[in-house]
Amino acid sequence: MRNPAGSRRDRRSAVTVGQAGEAGTIAAIRSAAPSALNGDDAAVLDVYAPNSRHVCTTDILVQDRHFSFRYSSPYEVGIKAITQNFADIQAMGARPTAVLMAIATPTELPLAHIHELARGINDAASPWSAELVGGDVVRSKDLVISITALGELVGPAPALTLDGAAVGDRVIASGVIGHSAAGLAILEHFGSRRAVPADDAVLSELVDWHCAPRLTPGRGSGARAAKVNSLTDNSDGLIRDAAMIAEHSGVCIDFAAAAIAPDEKLLHAAERTGQDPWRWVLTGGEDHTLVGTTSQAHLPTGYRVIGSVVAVSEDAEVVDPPAVTVDGRSPRYRDGWESL
Amino acid sequence: MRNPAGSRRDRRSAVTVGQAGEAGTIAAIRSAAPSALNGDDAAVLDVYAPNSRHVCTTDILVQDRHFSFRYSSPYEVGIKAITQNFADIQAMGARPTAVLMAIATPTELPLAHIHELARGINDAASPWSAELVGGDVVRSKDLVISITALGELVGPAPALTLDGAAVGDRVIASGVIGHSAAGLAILEHFGSRRAVPADDAVLSELVDWHCAPRLTPGRGSGARAAKVNSLTDNSDGLIRDAAMIAEHSGVCIDFAAAAIAPDEKLLHAAERTGQDPWRWVLTGGEDHTLVGTTSQAHLPTGYRVIGSVVAVSEDAEVVDPPAVTVDGRSPRYRDGWESL
Repeated sequence: MRNPAGSRRDRRSAVTVGQAGEAGTIAAIRSAAPSALNGDDAAVLDVYAPNSRHVCTTDILVQDRHFSFRYSSPYEVGIKAITQNFADIQAMGARPTAVLMAIATPTELPLAHIHELARGINDAASPWSAELVGGDVVRSKDLVISITALGELVGPAPALTLDGAAVGDRVIASGVIGHSAAGLAILEHFGSRRAVPADDAVLSELVDWHCAPRLTPGRGSGARAAKVNSLTDNSDGLIRDAAMIAEHSGVCIDFAAAAIAPDEKLLHAAERTGQDPWRWVLTGGEDHTLVGTTSQAHLPTGYRVIGSVVAVSEDAEVVDPPAVTVDGRSPRYRDGWESL
Repeated sequence: MRNPAGSRRDRRSAVTVGQAGEAGTIAAIRSAAPSALNGDDAAVLDVYAPNSRHVCTTDILVQDRHFSFRYSSPYEVGIKAITQNFADIQAMGARPTAVLMAIATPTELPLAHIHELARGINDAASPWSAELVGGDVVRSKDLVISITALGELVGPAPALTLDGAAVGDRVIASGVIGHSAAGLAILEHFGSRRAVPADDAVLSELVDWHCAPRLTPGRGSGARAAKVNSLTDNSDGLIRDAAMIAEHSGVCIDFAAAAIAPDEKLLHAAERTGQDPWRWVLTGGEDHTLVGTTSQAHLPTGYRVIGSVVAVSEDAEVVDPPAVTVDGRSPRYRDGWESL
């Protein structure tokens, strides 16, 4: 075999992070996610548009808690790490511009995993022309990936915060709901990715979505341009994330059951796994679907109506009124992802 | 006892992170490091001065690798986490402005540790009016603290990079060299912080410095205003960090032995521990002393001359010429901190 790309790949997959050392590991990252801004004590970011502001967020992923190489490839973990951070940037109505990645890794980890992780980060960031501008690599027992995303808000319009929802707003969403949770349920049902029937396109699609969810660029800044009142992303579960808006805004969010009901794909997966798809819809996070509220007549591109903002119940009989309801009633499931 | 502050403290120290949950843990952080910018999907940063640029860096600390609660208090770990990140911002000639902190923590960790960590971060950041603007908290087996620091470069002057050193420059430094390594050696020699003789002020000072090194605000932007050619910080060891400048700039850095020789405090600690203080000076990092090179007649405030920039040897007899020398010879010790 004289394929140089092949032999380079073979060599890299045989090498561990410990053998490559810090310099070799950073080289593997920079070759997969090249940036002229990377490589000094800190990264210098270009001048932004006049009258613009910066947005920054960070999210940390722990192996076997937030991802597992049993289910996901390192490339997919890179995609997912960017998606969950960029979703937070989009949920402010902003545009992602730059990424920092700090990795704590066992020295036995194959160097190829780090290279593939960085490739996933580069591929997921490139639709926004965003790039990996810096990072850190240290030794640890467990693999921990910490991503920081920076973004920009151009122009004087306010950021889209959790506290802007008003009674009378329509609740809107852009993206699928419950698909990531269904994908995880399928993986757990069949025990491994390989065991998922390859001829079942719906199951495969849901599994792929769980392992590497993707965002549509422009949905955050589009919502800001369309003057929506509040926005967040479905990271911890629909009820839980909507409750964040409701509590910060002092309102109640009522979802229309018909608008959030499990779609054909979820019904199919429910049949194959024997689970209730409503649990995926109401409590499953990690779709990073944008969920917000608007009082405008025109919806931003790519959004649909899934409910309405109503006043918090003042009925003295109702103790501890729910922040979020479905067709006016307490949701069947209301738990969500527990960080701790 | 009816002291409310006391009882609040007692209650917090009895509670673990797992018992407090995500909301309680975030509340402990925000009470210790309050910021109006914190609390949404992402933080929106204020508009910066016209003609300014942003600088960003990230560093990750793993328990029992980068810090140990056997030696350091959680408050000190917070100080140290800010110092090592802000040193990278200063080393670009910039001013730190904002901090993000992502924590992966065992659920058994006392909540008070998180509160104290955040208090250290707040105290170390406040001399710059910088604040903790966001973060993430997740569960893991080991405690991992990932800090991202943002900063600003005001005005059109270039950032201070690793590749600007020129033959004929003077090598300059601001801050102590080898003190952090001496502090660690003292802790290891006596086995614990308590066992360090309390009546020995020098030993205590070195130990305190190791556990919570501090920066002097203005030393980075001062060096940029004084038009120095290159700058970095002593994080991994003097020889190793100077070699980064030498290699990026294509020059050799020659330290004057007399200018970097162990000071009185290091000589005292060497006597008490039986170690060679030159090892601390040449290979010890984590002092976060700023080290750079300048061709200007006037040094920036707070800097002293510790060597000179010379041409790489072109003597055909010299194979693999050293990037860094001391009085023209290979340094006695040249290793440094190994990240992996």
